[in-house]
Amino acid sequence: MAEHLNPTACVLVVGNEVLSGRTQDANIQFLALRLGEIGIPLREVRIIPDVAETIITTVNEVRARFDHVFTTGGIGPTHDDITSECIAAAFGVPWEPHPDAWERMASYYSRTSGGIAEFNTARQRMATMPRGAILIDNEISIAPGFTLGNVHVMAGVPRIMRAMFESLAPRLRGGPPIVSAAVHAPGLPEGKIAGGLAAIQTRYPELDLGSYPYYRAAGNGVAIVAKGTDEQAVAAAIAEVTTLMSSLGGQPMQGEPPS
Amino acid sequence: MAEHLNPTACVLVVGNEVLSGRTQDANIQFLALRLGEIGIPLREVRIIPDVAETIITTVNEVRARFDHVFTTGGIGPTHDDITSECIAAAFGVPWEPHPDAWERMASYYSRTSGGIAEFNTARQRMATMPRGAILIDNEISIAPGFTLGNVHVMAGVPRIMRAMFESLAPRLRGGPPIVSAAVHAPGLPEGKIAGGLAAIQTRYPELDLGSYPYYRAAGNGVAIVAKGTDEQAVAAAIAEVTTLMSSLGGQPMQGEPPS
Repeated sequence: MAEHLNPTACVLVVGNEVLSGRTQDANIQFLALRLGEIGIPLREVRIIPDVAETIITTVNEVRARFDHVFTTGGIGPTHDDITSECIAAAFGVPWEPHPDAWERMASYYSRTSGGIAEFNTARQRMATMPRGAILIDNEISIAPGFTLGNVHVMAGVPRIMRAMFESLAPRLRGGPPIVSAAVHAPGLPEGKIAGGLAAIQTRYPELDLGSYPYYRAAGNGVAIVAKGTDEQAVAAAIAEVTTLMSSLGGQPMQGEPPS
Repeated sequence: MAEHLNPTACVLVVGNEVLSGRTQDANIQFLALRLGEIGIPLREVRIIPDVAETIITTVNEVRARFDHVFTTGGIGPTHDDITSECIAAAFGVPWEPHPDAWERMASYYSRTSGGIAEFNTARQRMATMPRGAILIDNEISIAPGFTLGNVHVMAGVPRIMRAMFESLAPRLRGGPPIVSAAVHAPGLPEGKIAGGLAAIQTRYPELDLGSYPYYRAAGNGVAIVAKGTDEQAVAAAIAEVTTLMSSLGGQPMQGEPPS
């Protein structure tokens, strides 16, 4: 495997709505790409329900196994938003009003009071956090996420999650960025290229060579993606794959197939 | 929690391409919806890399914890397709030519021989399976998936995965279908409804009540979804939420908000 010198990431999606199929997750791909760019490759994703015992057990398992854990979802004001208190339970610390978050939210809601927005018990839950939490601000909503240890707790709403991640990113120390390159060959079946491709993979053990057949209205084929932290090795491997494709009668084209 | 009498499902997505962000997963939502319909609610999803040790360990962990495990990806002909041999290792059985799959694929490729398709070593891997595997046919591709114990091994390409799932579904014994209903209120903030909603959840412990704020060009609001196996209870809970929304000055509308 590549990237053995990079810190690793796990994403934990907390949400019955993804497990029921109501919602198509829209956060995993964003986080996968951004984490690769900053050199903290995503190594595992888990999607789990809004069940306290499951959240607590899973958080403790993955925070021990990965350098960083990013959670999305479950930090709103309603009864099914239990991520924050579960993080406190997982770390064995009190769940209590966070002074800065509380002051900020109380002030925000007092300015808009008289209208629909009161700093009620439900909203106060969004200013209640595990002791020691470091806030993750965002430009979209008043309610912050937070970091506790190596666990980064973010909203599930994609535009809020993205704003939180960009606010958090400068605090994360990554390794070398993961770079990738691709070549594809229209009409060439995956089963024909497999033997030669395996030989190339053996010569580049520090890279991941992925083989992805594609099926498009314009025609089928196979795309090969090389991925790793060594940009020169990535380019050299793709050059070898290109030669292999040509030798098998393919007409390789650099990059991913047009979508 | 609802559905405690239903068998449970876990989906295992095997694929570096999802973890790198190259590919947006297109299988989880389909499986979540179909599994709910046949009464085998999806309880957890894991997305893991094409690493043998990780696949073997994870398969053994989740097949012990859930009634059914559905894997997608990693059963093609190339060096990065290692799901099938890892399932054999996880179960501690030989990985060997499957007589039916082998005969079918050898026959298919002999008919198309002389062209680009030869039943070579790489393609023979797709007819090699854990001993005891029961084939999962599909109408799209010649290569079958398989079931071993409570683990169902399917392709990653969405249209092939879907065909495999529909071929497999009649063999699965589910519980009562999971039904759901929704109501939404434009302009009503989640933080205002939270208290009353928690009280309704308490009266319907057998249901899951989910609260989902939405942000659309046409306006923001909150959608409440009730989910469970008791259709009457689902309807009654949504009626109570509707009354709650009205009492808070909202104008509730049945169903999900228009997308």
